Amino acid sequence: MKTTERLLSATKDIWAAYNENPFVKGIQDGTLEQAKFKYYIIQDYLYLEEYTKVFALGIAKAKSPETIQLFSRYVTLLTEGEMDIHRGYMGKFSVSREELEATPRSLDNLSYTSYMLRVAYEEGEAEILAAILSCAYSYEVIAKKIVENNPLAQDHPFYGDWVRGYANPHYGEANVLLLEMTDRLTLHYTEQQVRHLEDIFVACSRYELAFWEMAWNMSK
Amino acid sequence: MKTTERLLSATKDIWAAYNENPFVKGIQDGTLEQAKFKYYIIQDYLYLEEYTKVFALGIAKAKSPETIQLFSRYVTLLTEGEMDIHRGYMGKFSVSREELEATPRSLDNLSYTSYMLRVAYEEGEAEILAAILSCAYSYEVIAKKIVENNPLAQDHPFYGDWVRGYANPHYGEANVLLLEMTDRLTLHYTEQQVRHLEDIFVACSRYELAFWEMAWNMSK
Amino acid sequence: MKTTERLLSATKDIWAAYNENPFVKGIQDGTLEQAKFKYYIIQDYLYLEEYTKVFALGIAKAKSPETIQLFSRYVTLLTEGEMDIHRGYMGKFSVSREELEATPRSLDNLSYTSYMLRVAYEEGEAEILAAILSCAYSYEVIAKKIVENNPLAQDHPFYGDWVRGYANPHYGEANVLLLEMTDRLTLHYTEQQVRHLEDIFVACSRYELAFWEMAWNMSK
Amino acid sequence: MKTTERLLSATKDIWAAYNENPFVKGIQDGTLEQAKFKYYIIQDYLYLEEYTKVFALGIAKAKSPETIQLFSRYVTLLTEGEMDIHRGYMGKFSVSREELEATPRSLDNLSYTSYMLRVAYEEGEAEILAAILSCAYSYEVIAKKIVENNPLAQDHPFYGDWVRGYANPHYGEANVLLLEMTDRLTLHYTEQQVRHLEDIFVACSRYELAFWEMAWNMSK
Repeated sequence: MKTTERLLSATKDIWAAYNENPFVKGIQDGTLEQAKFKYYIIQDYLYLEEYTKVFALGIAKAKSPETIQLFSRYVTLLTEGEMDIHRGYMGKFSVSREELEATPRSLDNLSYTSYMLRVAYEEGEAEILAAILSCAYSYEVIAKKIVENNPLAQDHPFYGDWVRGYANPHYGEANVLLLEMTDRLTLHYTEQQVRHLEDIFVACSRYELAFWEMAWNMSK
Repeated sequence: MKTTERLLSATKDIWAAYNENPFVKGIQDGTLEQAKFKYYIIQDYLYLEEYTKVFALGIAKAKSPETIQLFSRYVTLLTEGEMDIHRGYMGKFSVSREELEATPRSLDNLSYTSYMLRVAYEEGEAEILAAILSCAYSYEVIAKKIVENNPLAQDHPFYGDWVRGYANPHYGEANVLLLEMTDRLTLHYTEQQVRHLEDIFVACSRYELAFWEMAWNMSK
Repeated sequence: MKTTERLLSATKDIWAAYNENPFVKGIQDGTLEQAKFKYYIIQDYLYLEEYTKVFALGIAKAKSPETIQLFSRYVTLLTEGEMDIHRGYMGKFSVSREELEATPRSLDNLSYTSYMLRVAYEEGEAEILAAILSCAYSYEVIAKKIVENNPLAQDHPFYGDWVRGYANPHYGEANVLLLEMTDRLTLHYTEQQVRHLEDIFVACSRYELAFWEMAWNMSK
Repeated sequence: MKTTERLLSATKDIWAAYNENPFVKGIQDGTLEQAKFKYYIIQDYLYLEEYTKVFALGIAKAKSPETIQLFSRYVTLLTEGEMDIHRGYMGKFSVSREELEATPRSLDNLSYTSYMLRVAYEEGEAEILAAILSCAYSYEVIAKKIVENNPLAQDHPFYGDWVRGYANPHYGEANVLLLEMTDRLTLHYTEQQVRHLEDIFVACSRYELAFWEMAWNMSK
């Protein structure tokens, strides 16, 4: 079995729970309260600032020009324009830079990014990829399931941008690169090393689920 | 105002909540269910393994022989015998090394240590001290308040060892060294730098409170 | 005095020695043996792979979106195309990717990049900038002095590309951003902190000079 | 072949050169100028301050309680008293703490420790051990060869303490633990991973040789 198949198999139940979360369901049927989405989009923006740092540490730990390229493209995307989905909603909500910087990270948010950063400082390039994958790939899976369950979700006047952004084939192609690199770098991993990757991936998936719960509860 | 006074002032409400937690109250009046304490003592043991790493990173980031000494004494204590309180209870509960290693860290536990480790990799010696202080010093404050509220708690046949261990003057003297070093290293800190220390101390204090809640709920 | 003025003042003699080095003089008067330049351009290429990692660690340690942007633009430049000067010469020398990867880093090269990486892991954003500056800015200063001493150096059929590349106003503008950010971030630095920056800048400048000597001697 | 045998095999020539260095020969035959030894002992003291940090990072990167114990015992030794050999000579030379702190690290010294620290931040526990081994074990090998070549070297009124300190069976036993742990942790390493360990060990051995040359030349 490929490494990424093992990671997904180890987190099957957690991943199944994403689309059952009331926040995600609210995006799917278009009934999500906008105040909750505003809370989420701001926390997610703060999240991405730190997520960028995880990719940057991937560059620092990279053992080949190929992984440097892979990580650095994400750094560019995340700092130069790929935050378009977020910027769009920031505009819709008229969130100023000041409001953004004055918003404290919720503790769940801080826990998730701190865990990834800690892994990034402690470990190597493959382990960093395992930490990154959970967020990057689950957004694609979640958005595609939303479209499967309710094709009209893509055309929702407010949440359609979000759904299309992550169900988009371009977004999926970028994930293929992450998945393939994870498999390539871990081809000769021992059972113990793969289990350690599973631990990282499970932890990140649990943090991902906690993030959706946090968004629904608008936790402080 | 000294830096440590500012840190304690910024977390006054959180620190006041520690002794109101049902787990801590259960130690105070001796009614705590032992299954909950066993859960706690194992999670705390796993916590201390990572806490040791925060001190080790303090050595790596230290700018003077004095801070190297301070951090390295804690590393010695934590790895060579100061875990006596824990070892005692491990014996009482007949927790084997195998059981210990088979117990997964709860997500709250992982969040707390990951946050401290992330601070330790990202920041300097004073910031690492601010992260360390919350756990080290709150145990003294909690145990002394327990004794104040219920002097008999020290003589409780089961929880007395825990209470005496942390209300002990020796434990308090070690904390004085941590507090004084924090104040000394930050004497010329700008307002912005002190606020950053407050952010770290507030986050750790919130994680500390979440740890007591986790213990009470025996969270997975 | 601005911080960057202090850094340059502390390294005046070392910086004056750069243009006295026989390798640099050989570029200036066009007499440098091409075998030496080939050795240099390959070592410099290997250097830039690790230099990129220093900027990446700058992103990880950045305290504001502005410094994240500054560091990440350099990461993009260094990984996506700004190595044009090097790529051009690699082509001229017909250096294959295989030859490049088979070439061991010289010990002087490894020492310089290891020192910068160590600073990047241990310190904060301003200290990382101080480590980065020595290489980035000295190339501008060296190239401009070459042009001043011998304006024809820009038109040399072989070394002209190198001279024009670093004497170029665009290259200088990028350095202005690094210099200004260093001054901005250290505006409230204590004397002790500025001295520490000087130590970093002096060490890097010494490594820079050793790099030119290594190139001249084609050290293993 | 065991990993450590491969490491020693890859550095055979460098290790053979240690006892040919005029500084080491001067200790062997007792003719070494004391001013050179004083220079060396101060630089070595500064070296050990940073060497301690490499062990501390080993604790931070350790994957098991056994490696935490191994690294932390060295931290204790290095900070609490095992620097006895150095302290003795510091006394003989009347080197004050002020003189020590006022002495700048030579560039060779800084290069060596920066390389080890960089490896410690970038890599895992086995790679850190490979970086540590070169210094720890070569001192035993060098001192034993000195005794073999000139048994009277142990009784030299001035250099005898140094020779006995490192030819001592206790010192050798500690190295056995480092060697055995390196072999144990790398039992299932791929060829590529072992080669990477060789690169680290070769680099450190080259820095070790450069350190003896630096001592002989009393480099600035």
